Amino acid sequence: MPARRRIGEFELIARYFAPLARGFDGAGGLVSDNAFLAADARHDVAVKTDTVVAGVHFLVDERAERVAAKALRVCLSDLAAGGATPLAYQLSLALPVGWRERWVADFARGLAADQRRYGILLCGGDTVVTPGPLTVTITAFGKVPRGKGLGRADARAGDELWVSGTIGDGALGLLAARGKLGFLGARDRKVLEERYRLPQPRSRLGPSLIGIAHAVADVSDGLLADAGHIAAASRLAVQIERTQVPLSASARRALAQDESLWPSVLGGGDDYELVIAVPPGRVPALRDAARAVGVGVTRVGRFARGRGARLTVEGRAVPVPRAGYVHF
Amino acid sequence: MPARRRIGEFELIARYFAPLARGFDGAGGLVSDNAFLAADARHDVAVKTDTVVAGVHFLVDERAERVAAKALRVCLSDLAAGGATPLAYQLSLALPVGWRERWVADFARGLAADQRRYGILLCGGDTVVTPGPLTVTITAFGKVPRGKGLGRADARAGDELWVSGTIGDGALGLLAARGKLGFLGARDRKVLEERYRLPQPRSRLGPSLIGIAHAVADVSDGLLADAGHIAAASRLAVQIERTQVPLSASARRALAQDESLWPSVLGGGDDYELVIAVPPGRVPALRDAARAVGVGVTRVGRFARGRGARLTVEGRAVPVPRAGYVHF
Repeated sequence: MPARRRIGEFELIARYFAPLARGFDGAGGLVSDNAFLAADARHDVAVKTDTVVAGVHFLVDERAERVAAKALRVCLSDLAAGGATPLAYQLSLALPVGWRERWVADFARGLAADQRRYGILLCGGDTVVTPGPLTVTITAFGKVPRGKGLGRADARAGDELWVSGTIGDGALGLLAARGKLGFLGARDRKVLEERYRLPQPRSRLGPSLIGIAHAVADVSDGLLADAGHIAAASRLAVQIERTQVPLSASARRALAQDESLWPSVLGGGDDYELVIAVPPGRVPALRDAARAVGVGVTRVGRFARGRGARLTVEGRAVPVPRAGYVHF
Repeated sequence: MPARRRIGEFELIARYFAPLARGFDGAGGLVSDNAFLAADARHDVAVKTDTVVAGVHFLVDERAERVAAKALRVCLSDLAAGGATPLAYQLSLALPVGWRERWVADFARGLAADQRRYGILLCGGDTVVTPGPLTVTITAFGKVPRGKGLGRADARAGDELWVSGTIGDGALGLLAARGKLGFLGARDRKVLEERYRLPQPRSRLGPSLIGIAHAVADVSDGLLADAGHIAAASRLAVQIERTQVPLSASARRALAQDESLWPSVLGGGDDYELVIAVPPGRVPALRDAARAVGVGVTRVGRFARGRGARLTVEGRAVPVPRAGYVHF
């Protein structure tokens, strides 16, 4: 079932992707079947795969450079949550029938820019043509000191829940991109939309949380859902105080005009901030680590014995709006 | 852009995929963002990603267990070509809108069977819903002794070209599956079709080629194309003698009735045998290694200074039929 041949897969790899693997010895210029991650007795390799599909995880008319950045950054956000420093990635690119070489060139340029920004190199992958929508799967590799990788399962009762940056901009940005926030000023809409289109993974904060945090996850399903996932994996309950949730000025203005946006802010995804379970005694170390990389961190709740996620407003329990953004 | 929710992604992972990660410590039961491949000073990690799309790389009506096996095995075939022993894999499953839990259960059962067969464990991934066809991307990890991983680039002039097993069954099997080999007996058609539907990666032969072969690739694009890729990556020419190409009894009967199938046999893909560049002095070692794992190997040509792939029949040059099977 051959698709129409423009330039062949090998030429495409040689022209656009091999340059992205320059400098990663184990990729061997992408001429072989495998890449090889060199043995390193002092580090484990963190691994995460993320798939983004046109019309599901990014807008169908998104520019190629932005698709590249989004695909890579959602994966880098996961590595950050693991405490890992970016190392290399594999790319599976499923191009829609009718793809154009120009698009691939732009996509590769977007990858190249982010490779420089995050210090990561391509090390291999696959390229296919699909009768479906453009689909990009990235498997990213990061380095963590041996045995020190962070996950969701080790929060403890009494840990505080902290978040990086601001929450809700991703979900509000998606609403803005779909023309749903017309009451808001153009500048605010643009700021929010940019947050949705171009995640800013916390790649420097994540590794600095090793030895400080008990558990970390990134906010891809929404603050309530992702904090809830840490609680569930650690067999704990989590309580989040809404008045403590850090908001951007744009999000604050949106909520001031329309309180019904709160469920999107707390339950929408795509913030790509970190949610962090930290014991009270290590809070000063957390503050120092965040200051050192220039990222704000805010206490928003705590973990306790029990089950489930509980939302409060000035200490009074309120209904949890929804279980999280459902890409799935 | 939420898709219809049946069971959620977390429940799906817990029910069907977490059991597949049991026994792989670094997967942490799939409750965290990342998996961790433990540091190992004696081995490098071989990595390969392959994507298969319904209607492109497998038949749209293929059974879920077979889809699982094909997706995993094409990746295992690449690891074998690298000399790597299977270790773990990440799975990205893009389910079509309207997917059924029953299908996922069957798919997971197919993975479980092959995990036992090949000694590999799931260590993470992603699950999304796509408006397009079912798409499975697997990134497989294997272990190779440090610095010893095999690739395409190190063949040398004078090396002999050997292949494992038999060639052409995959391409003939696809023709059989599409009803194109009606002149052939039902048993032969079934044998060939099985070869297409269910690759047999050379996972035991591959690692035993370390220290013997200069270069190895798997036959996924067709013998001529894949031998040509070794030649190109090694900056050599390759000559293949058609009368030496090992054929199954079924393929021999097909060719006896229709000589025009030769281009499919030599240029079709999906054989998942290994093409091996070996110096003449190590041929006895190659024979021993192949015998030890119960796989036939056959000399089909040689590498020389120059460029390109040349096909001969009893020493006389004949036109190379086509450049390889074009999935792309």
